[in-house]
Amino acid sequence: MADAAPRGFAPVEYQARLRRAQILMAQQDLAGMLLMTEAEVRYFTGFHTLFWQSPTRPWFLFVPANGKPIAVIPEIGAALMRQTWIDDIRCWSSPSPEDDGISLLQELLAPLAQQGGRLGLPMGHETSLRMPLGDYERLITSLPGLWITDATPIIRAMRMVKSEAEIGKLAHICGIGSHGFARLPELAQAGQPLSETFREFRRELLAQGADDVPYLVGGADQGGYHDVISPPSARPLQAGDILMLDTGATYDGYFCDFDRNFAITRADDLSRRAYDTLWRATEAGIEAARPGATCRDLFTAMQTVIAEMDSAGGDVGRLGHGLGMQLTEWPSHAAFDTTVLAENMVLTLEPSLGYGDGRMMVHEENIVIQNGAPRVLTTRAAPELPVI
Amino acid sequence: MADAAPRGFAPVEYQARLRRAQILMAQQDLAGMLLMTEAEVRYFTGFHTLFWQSPTRPWFLFVPANGKPIAVIPEIGAALMRQTWIDDIRCWSSPSPEDDGISLLQELLAPLAQQGGRLGLPMGHETSLRMPLGDYERLITSLPGLWITDATPIIRAMRMVKSEAEIGKLAHICGIGSHGFARLPELAQAGQPLSETFREFRRELLAQGADDVPYLVGGADQGGYHDVISPPSARPLQAGDILMLDTGATYDGYFCDFDRNFAITRADDLSRRAYDTLWRATEAGIEAARPGATCRDLFTAMQTVIAEMDSAGGDVGRLGHGLGMQLTEWPSHAAFDTTVLAENMVLTLEPSLGYGDGRMMVHEENIVIQNGAPRVLTTRAAPELPVI
Repeated sequence: MADAAPRGFAPVEYQARLRRAQILMAQQDLAGMLLMTEAEVRYFTGFHTLFWQSPTRPWFLFVPANGKPIAVIPEIGAALMRQTWIDDIRCWSSPSPEDDGISLLQELLAPLAQQGGRLGLPMGHETSLRMPLGDYERLITSLPGLWITDATPIIRAMRMVKSEAEIGKLAHICGIGSHGFARLPELAQAGQPLSETFREFRRELLAQGADDVPYLVGGADQGGYHDVISPPSARPLQAGDILMLDTGATYDGYFCDFDRNFAITRADDLSRRAYDTLWRATEAGIEAARPGATCRDLFTAMQTVIAEMDSAGGDVGRLGHGLGMQLTEWPSHAAFDTTVLAENMVLTLEPSLGYGDGRMMVHEENIVIQNGAPRVLTTRAAPELPVI
Repeated sequence: MADAAPRGFAPVEYQARLRRAQILMAQQDLAGMLLMTEAEVRYFTGFHTLFWQSPTRPWFLFVPANGKPIAVIPEIGAALMRQTWIDDIRCWSSPSPEDDGISLLQELLAPLAQQGGRLGLPMGHETSLRMPLGDYERLITSLPGLWITDATPIIRAMRMVKSEAEIGKLAHICGIGSHGFARLPELAQAGQPLSETFREFRRELLAQGADDVPYLVGGADQGGYHDVISPPSARPLQAGDILMLDTGATYDGYFCDFDRNFAITRADDLSRRAYDTLWRATEAGIEAARPGATCRDLFTAMQTVIAEMDSAGGDVGRLGHGLGMQLTEWPSHAAFDTTVLAENMVLTLEPSLGYGDGRMMVHEENIVIQNGAPRVLTTRAAPELPVI
């Protein structure tokens, strides 16, 4: 097992995040932000639990223009929240369908509403509302003075750029994933049902030190796979299959997200060519990933190589994305995204193409933007399609 | 590894779900329902992927008053959706922040809006809005004739009662969890960091045939644990610890959700008494779990026993819940919930209490309501606190 990166963050990390948020909030004249998803609550508090798997209870964090965040949470989370740096923790006995935190929020937000304050709420791209829509509408209607503003640009700007401590966790889990893929030739062989390959790979990632493997998808078929988001079938691996596994394993709440391709027993020429094209597209992406370039530049650099074999591009919609507390985060390497790359952004490079008779291939690496060439967190894929 | 339950469902299962939904929709004069969460989309289509881990893209399913559901989804999911029983699949190249499926939804819903139709949307207890709130508001504003109605009661009524095929999957994963817990005395011992106990237990559940272990929480401390939703610390298990693990493992998209308690080397009297009290509270819950009883009856039956040791009750908020495609589903065993139990509801019984100096204990079993006594899907916990 790899040496572990330290767990948690020093209080100074949360203080810095709060300070940065309050600077950005001041620029938008926000009186506060109301957050409610796992990643956002954890980002500002350190509150870390798998209990979010239960959809039953809403959780709220209010980040004020001045002062520390205020947690408005179900009583079941109080003990864990008291272990974080948060002081003001307001609880109710949840579930309580008639009033699941709403009156506590009304009390908290009433002074803002009376002043006609602006409340930031993430409501833009890649966000969702993790509370009942009916409760949200009831809450907002009861606070007519409040102005709701989209806080997505603030959250996005903050979370896109990682701290050194965050990069340490991401590097650690990318290392675990790389060690796991290095062992795949020992775990997978012709005749093994793909579902068993997945099971063995999950167990290996845990043995290597991953806390969890929330994401594992892939495919295998003769001369190439057809789909990149499916659960595994029980079809046995066969000579001539191209096998791909794509994993999002976690360490201390941070994800890796990358894949590897393998040929079983033998590799066909077209798959070899697809592999070579995507390997070079990734190289082009790495080369282009410099501070000051845009996500669109990254997209163009990779797409130019991909076009040697597939001018249409795949149906994946982009060629990589941000990475951190979630499997995918802003930004997107796509023509629409003009985000300027900055030091300490952690990104995936994920070129893909369609080939042959409805086959597709994807490659993926995880990098950190830094001065000069990026740091590649994953052990770079072999330049030629490995044969198992 | 346990013999596997069949994967997927026959088309007749989806036809039956649709028919039932349309009967309930007709009673509420709904022209359709718009669904967008993993569980709801999978429930009506069979679309099963871990890709929901990525928050980037929204996914939509429209269930009309007549005819088959219509999927409005990102192109990356088209191949997998075509493997389901759904015919009408409308795709766009996502992510596309300017129009992430919204114009496709407008086109689909415009005829309903022109007729002043009622559109059902789950917006009540235990639901969330899995799309950007800004996009939702833009969509609804653009369709002024549309009446938005809460579809939670329909979805809730349907999903609470399981089919035989669903119960087969739930029984299978509960069996896997039970086999895993039976092996825990071999996996855990004094001196082992709790995080390693968790790791070994996860690996064991996978080896036993679980597809994934999305939920594993617990605690261990001298004479009792303090918290039931935390990730594991690296503190080594010690003689005198009470150890609890609570797992939500999955098979083919269905969860078990239960826990087990163990004493390390020796058990203190108070923990033994807490264990005995909760074991008998569970017995009382099993006894009370009959068709025609309410969730409140179940709550009262268990709470009466718990009160021997803790009249206040814990801070968990309820004493069990529904179980199925999500770790927790409606209903809740709580004083507020008067849901009438019916055959083929799958439930957890989860009595808990506080004791000693801020210690707590939880017990949990998974059952199916049937005529007469319920079927207990989990291997019943030992009547006395097991010592490892």
